[in-house]
Amino acid sequence: MPEMLAIFGDEALLRAALDFEAALAGAEAAEGLIPQAAAALIAAACAEPSIEIGALAEAAAHAGTLAIPLVAHLRGLVGQQDPTAAEQIHLGATSQDLADTALILQAKAGSRLIEREAGRIAAALEALAETHLDTPMLGRTLLQAALPVTFGLKAGNWLLGMDEAAARFRTERDRALVVQFGGAAGSLAGLGGKGFAVGERLAAALGLACPVTPWHARRTGLAGLGTALAVLCGAAGKIARDISLLAQTEIAEAFEPRIAGRGGSSAMAHKRNPTGCQIVLSAALRTPGLTATLLAALPQEHERGLGGWQAEGPVLAELYQVTHGALAALVTIVEGLELDPARMRANLDGAGIGTDTGESAALALRALDHHRKTRPRE
Amino acid sequence: MPEMLAIFGDEALLRAALDFEAALAGAEAAEGLIPQAAAALIAAACAEPSIEIGALAEAAAHAGTLAIPLVAHLRGLVGQQDPTAAEQIHLGATSQDLADTALILQAKAGSRLIEREAGRIAAALEALAETHLDTPMLGRTLLQAALPVTFGLKAGNWLLGMDEAAARFRTERDRALVVQFGGAAGSLAGLGGKGFAVGERLAAALGLACPVTPWHARRTGLAGLGTALAVLCGAAGKIARDISLLAQTEIAEAFEPRIAGRGGSSAMAHKRNPTGCQIVLSAALRTPGLTATLLAALPQEHERGLGGWQAEGPVLAELYQVTHGALAALVTIVEGLELDPARMRANLDGAGIGTDTGESAALALRALDHHRKTRPRE
Amino acid sequence: MPEMLAIFGDEALLRAALDFEAALAGAEAAEGLIPQAAAALIAAACAEPSIEIGALAEAAAHAGTLAIPLVAHLRGLVGQQDPTAAEQIHLGATSQDLADTALILQAKAGSRLIEREAGRIAAALEALAETHLDTPMLGRTLLQAALPVTFGLKAGNWLLGMDEAAARFRTERDRALVVQFGGAAGSLAGLGGKGFAVGERLAAALGLACPVTPWHARRTGLAGLGTALAVLCGAAGKIARDISLLAQTEIAEAFEPRIAGRGGSSAMAHKRNPTGCQIVLSAALRTPGLTATLLAALPQEHERGLGGWQAEGPVLAELYQVTHGALAALVTIVEGLELDPARMRANLDGAGIGTDTGESAALALRALDHHRKTRPRE
Amino acid sequence: MPEMLAIFGDEALLRAALDFEAALAGAEAAEGLIPQAAAALIAAACAEPSIEIGALAEAAAHAGTLAIPLVAHLRGLVGQQDPTAAEQIHLGATSQDLADTALILQAKAGSRLIEREAGRIAAALEALAETHLDTPMLGRTLLQAALPVTFGLKAGNWLLGMDEAAARFRTERDRALVVQFGGAAGSLAGLGGKGFAVGERLAAALGLACPVTPWHARRTGLAGLGTALAVLCGAAGKIARDISLLAQTEIAEAFEPRIAGRGGSSAMAHKRNPTGCQIVLSAALRTPGLTATLLAALPQEHERGLGGWQAEGPVLAELYQVTHGALAALVTIVEGLELDPARMRANLDGAGIGTDTGESAALALRALDHHRKTRPRE
Repeated sequence: MPEMLAIFGDEALLRAALDFEAALAGAEAAEGLIPQAAAALIAAACAEPSIEIGALAEAAAHAGTLAIPLVAHLRGLVGQQDPTAAEQIHLGATSQDLADTALILQAKAGSRLIEREAGRIAAALEALAETHLDTPMLGRTLLQAALPVTFGLKAGNWLLGMDEAAARFRTERDRALVVQFGGAAGSLAGLGGKGFAVGERLAAALGLACPVTPWHARRTGLAGLGTALAVLCGAAGKIARDISLLAQTEIAEAFEPRIAGRGGSSAMAHKRNPTGCQIVLSAALRTPGLTATLLAALPQEHERGLGGWQAEGPVLAELYQVTHGALAALVTIVEGLELDPARMRANLDGAGIGTDTGESAALALRALDHHRKTRPRE
Repeated sequence: MPEMLAIFGDEALLRAALDFEAALAGAEAAEGLIPQAAAALIAAACAEPSIEIGALAEAAAHAGTLAIPLVAHLRGLVGQQDPTAAEQIHLGATSQDLADTALILQAKAGSRLIEREAGRIAAALEALAETHLDTPMLGRTLLQAALPVTFGLKAGNWLLGMDEAAARFRTERDRALVVQFGGAAGSLAGLGGKGFAVGERLAAALGLACPVTPWHARRTGLAGLGTALAVLCGAAGKIARDISLLAQTEIAEAFEPRIAGRGGSSAMAHKRNPTGCQIVLSAALRTPGLTATLLAALPQEHERGLGGWQAEGPVLAELYQVTHGALAALVTIVEGLELDPARMRANLDGAGIGTDTGESAALALRALDHHRKTRPRE
Repeated sequence: MPEMLAIFGDEALLRAALDFEAALAGAEAAEGLIPQAAAALIAAACAEPSIEIGALAEAAAHAGTLAIPLVAHLRGLVGQQDPTAAEQIHLGATSQDLADTALILQAKAGSRLIEREAGRIAAALEALAETHLDTPMLGRTLLQAALPVTFGLKAGNWLLGMDEAAARFRTERDRALVVQFGGAAGSLAGLGGKGFAVGERLAAALGLACPVTPWHARRTGLAGLGTALAVLCGAAGKIARDISLLAQTEIAEAFEPRIAGRGGSSAMAHKRNPTGCQIVLSAALRTPGLTATLLAALPQEHERGLGGWQAEGPVLAELYQVTHGALAALVTIVEGLELDPARMRANLDGAGIGTDTGESAALALRALDHHRKTRPRE
Repeated sequence: MPEMLAIFGDEALLRAALDFEAALAGAEAAEGLIPQAAAALIAAACAEPSIEIGALAEAAAHAGTLAIPLVAHLRGLVGQQDPTAAEQIHLGATSQDLADTALILQAKAGSRLIEREAGRIAAALEALAETHLDTPMLGRTLLQAALPVTFGLKAGNWLLGMDEAAARFRTERDRALVVQFGGAAGSLAGLGGKGFAVGERLAAALGLACPVTPWHARRTGLAGLGTALAVLCGAAGKIARDISLLAQTEIAEAFEPRIAGRGGSSAMAHKRNPTGCQIVLSAALRTPGLTATLLAALPQEHERGLGGWQAEGPVLAELYQVTHGALAALVTIVEGLELDPARMRANLDGAGIGTDTGESAALALRALDHHRKTRPRE
């Protein structure tokens, strides 16, 4: 989706990097490490950086890090006014401080979109479960007719899956959204013992938490965040799997909403394809492998590793993009889901297994109740 | 490790399955669904099942599920005394109720071992960080000499990584250790409206939590548990990576303890191989792919899926075994780690980057403090 | 399946390791490096090793390698008769020479089973395609009714998928089934310049090819073999996916054969579960993650790595076992597949899309023709 | 790298899609299915499509397929001149025919770059092995000093790994670079029995092979291609692993070439970071998970699946991009690799294990000989 692409795009990355440098200078001025005037000049340069993004991206690719060309550019800008202040840019920081913090700022913005879509999905599922609490349908196991259930139970179970995955995501998000500031070897050297205090101010300025110690080579938070996205995408995939199976021509119990220009076929005018489910299922196929990369990257070398943390950035970005694409598609599906209770009843009757839905409705009510008690307050 | 192999072995699986059937009969008797006498007969049969495990495993493989031959065997035993009671075995349950609950019981036992090793590792790291708070050494980034740090900071960072991963593991364990009881389509049919109450009693009898609704096709808890194991294994892998690099002949700053008969070479008597690190790193290579399987299995079909949940059991077992093997090896390493502070100092001097360790010691203290405040009380 | 479990079991591993040591001694005697009498004594000890497998496995786990306790045991046996000959066991070899060659010998045996099942599946698919060349059915795309096809085309496409995957497997098998013999650092030191010649004789004696150089840290062959197994398992998974969808209650066009005691339900007597498809689909979920491990292990350190090659053995074994289990289950399915052409016709008619199957039959004939021209001759 | 990004970029995709439609019309005209004049008009529209790429990408995202808006646009263009010809665009084709063929055309272009870099790496390794055939150095196993080898053997082993992986890549490329043309359900309906002949002409016009039958749901070729890229990237990763370890401050035997503006540190002027190795190792971490996705996508539903093939396109593109980035970085490293034979000798002497390099030089010669005999002729 364009919104999430923008959050992890070059422009947003640059903005995050500039915010880091400006906030760092501010924090260091507040701790008396650099003059307030220098911090003001640096902040001004970061506000109006006059950077050609394409050229910077190329220079960053060449240098192997964004920090070097960006800091050089800022030093050029500030140096025209105050050469001493220019030297104070990025003071005590290392490339990875900037790279990690920028990634976390992007993840923070991305997390808001993820939450928003998850909230809409849950609201739609809540309504579906409530409306169809007693709507009987065929329960299917191992792809065979089993016993009667209600659609309310099915929707309630979808809701619980999304709720559990969203709760995990919030926990991991809070764990991972921490600033990175440790300097070259993570020892906060060269800052006269004020390094940690700078880090705390930096975190506050950027709206992030401050970690116990720098986490240059302790990547469990990122891995946890990535796995939470994958579980969320998988929970969405479960719903898409069910809807696409219910939408099969021979079953025809549920359908994605008709959307002009979507779901058609370039070859067959009669088809109504589950295009939204396709997006979700495709996403759920991609997130496990991406997650495996984050897990494989955990054993990073020494104080700051080689290759591991460089792999995480693009992979985490992709996890946000793919998962968000899935959730956004699922919003459309569940908000406009068309059900055919008569067909559900007919398929149920055809199976010849009676109509006793057991405790389906009571279980659905339990799911709704749990959802209402645990959903996040805004 | 033999202990964990046993927990996920055939005998323990059978014991868990028998416990399920006995506890189910007890719960159903308590709810008045079957006579207390029948429950007592069933419990007696489960206590002394006189089963030949090999034959049962074969029958289970043939049937595609353990429940069918096991229940048949129990019915045979009980039926000799009371044919009606025999029919009341497994009442209202489905194969997956038994399979999932048995797996969760195994996971519960396995989790205790995981916790135990994680606790020992943390204690050893705590002692290392404390002892070497101020021991200077070369900080290395991108595999190059960077700036001085202290070994205390390195050990403190290892400790934080393990602590964070262990905390995640406990959260996911608590989320996942829930009973499964829903009947054929997860609707608790055929139990006169007392199904959920039976499930609550069953959970209590087995020492598990009771879920909001049956989770036959909502596998987010298992996936979360698996990812937590992989993160834990990766956090251990980070420590093994560092130690194996420090143990390189040319660096020689840290060594695994000498253990009679381990670490030798079949070809070179002079070698002292980091055999424990090898086990940990090997494990950390395997857990990401296993986790990807659990994530890929999330979109399961309808009320109970086809193929997905059957893949989870062996994979989760392997995640426990591989992770436990890694942690057990790491216990030995960190409890007996040999350090050479003189060599650390020499390598640091050789790099010609001074001796300013910045805020290393203060950061290590922060790590220790955090550990002491957050470690689980027994 | 028990057959494949045995191939990768402890006993077969020990047998392979003993074969390696015996053949090595023979090769070294032939090159004049050790006396023929010593080789004969070593071969005799390997033939009747009087080893307690459990104890050896424990010792190997402790030592971190099988070679050390095994060679010690053999030296004990031979040394009773000739202490000099005892020293000549394992001459010039390293633990990994033995471990890798034993794994390759197991893979060789496992490959025969894989081939056998693949051949049976292909033969059954060939017959199905031929019989149903013109049997019309509904073609389905994106899980929706699309246009008519014939079952012959479907089976022909399954056959082509299996054929392509089996051809890849044979290529990778031939690439990977090579001996390992390089000594401690892969330099064939200490053998008076006759090391490579020994390796050639060793390979010939064991029925393996001889590589250009030792491959201790060049693991592309193993990775290629693993991926080929995963593609084969995925090709089987495609067939199981289709059959399980065709077997849905509402579609009912194809069914797994009835097998006494299989496919039943512990809760619902009326069900006929696609238990074979479940095995195949479960396997196809597991092989991708296992393969990722083999690929992740490729960048191994220096002459012989740490952790990488130790991860490969159990993972490759599992790939053989899981893939073989899938293929064996698929043999049963396709050899006994029950089709309902009348129902196929009814579902097709119900879709209201005419009966023009296009070039389905001609395409199926092309598939059959290609299969007949390319299938391996025995 | 920009070149590979362009190959898988929106513009190149559009060009490939237009080439498909033009070639299809040409093939259908040659078979008498549409008038030559219509084919000429269609080809002209495809040559000068006057399409705004951004808008088309948006429309494709909305429709869930590129084919629908693209064909609509072309029909608009052609229809201004000949409404009947407009209807003949995309005749008998389905969206996936276009999507798959366009992806394959991109893969073909990408494969040329992969081959080019692999060739340059091999040439540089050949020269290194030859130059240093007898340069002694420490052989290291399990990250410990083991026995002497020569750098020639190390480079020769790197070369064999790259050669094997490149050979596999060429095989898989040839298998996968086939046209897709089957129509809505893969039956080539609506083309009067000339569908297969059209496909053959289409393949020839696009420089692709023609498959035995359409492969809409038989994705083994794509999976094979992806795994071959991952093995190639892993073989490169092995080289980068070794070089980065040799470049460690304490070992200092090999170094990446100095490149102005690369490898520096934003915090430490004294550092010379192995930035190229970082790129390669990062890539080798990412390719296994991507490959797992292609393997997991194999069991696609019926005639054309839901979600599976939609996941493959972006993942295959990423495999090309990541692998190419790794190879291009490795070209720079190995073409400019700086070695320090004196330091190699000093480290070897320090290990106190003598200087016998065994058959290292002879093995390196074998590797060179094998390379020269098997390298592809242009």
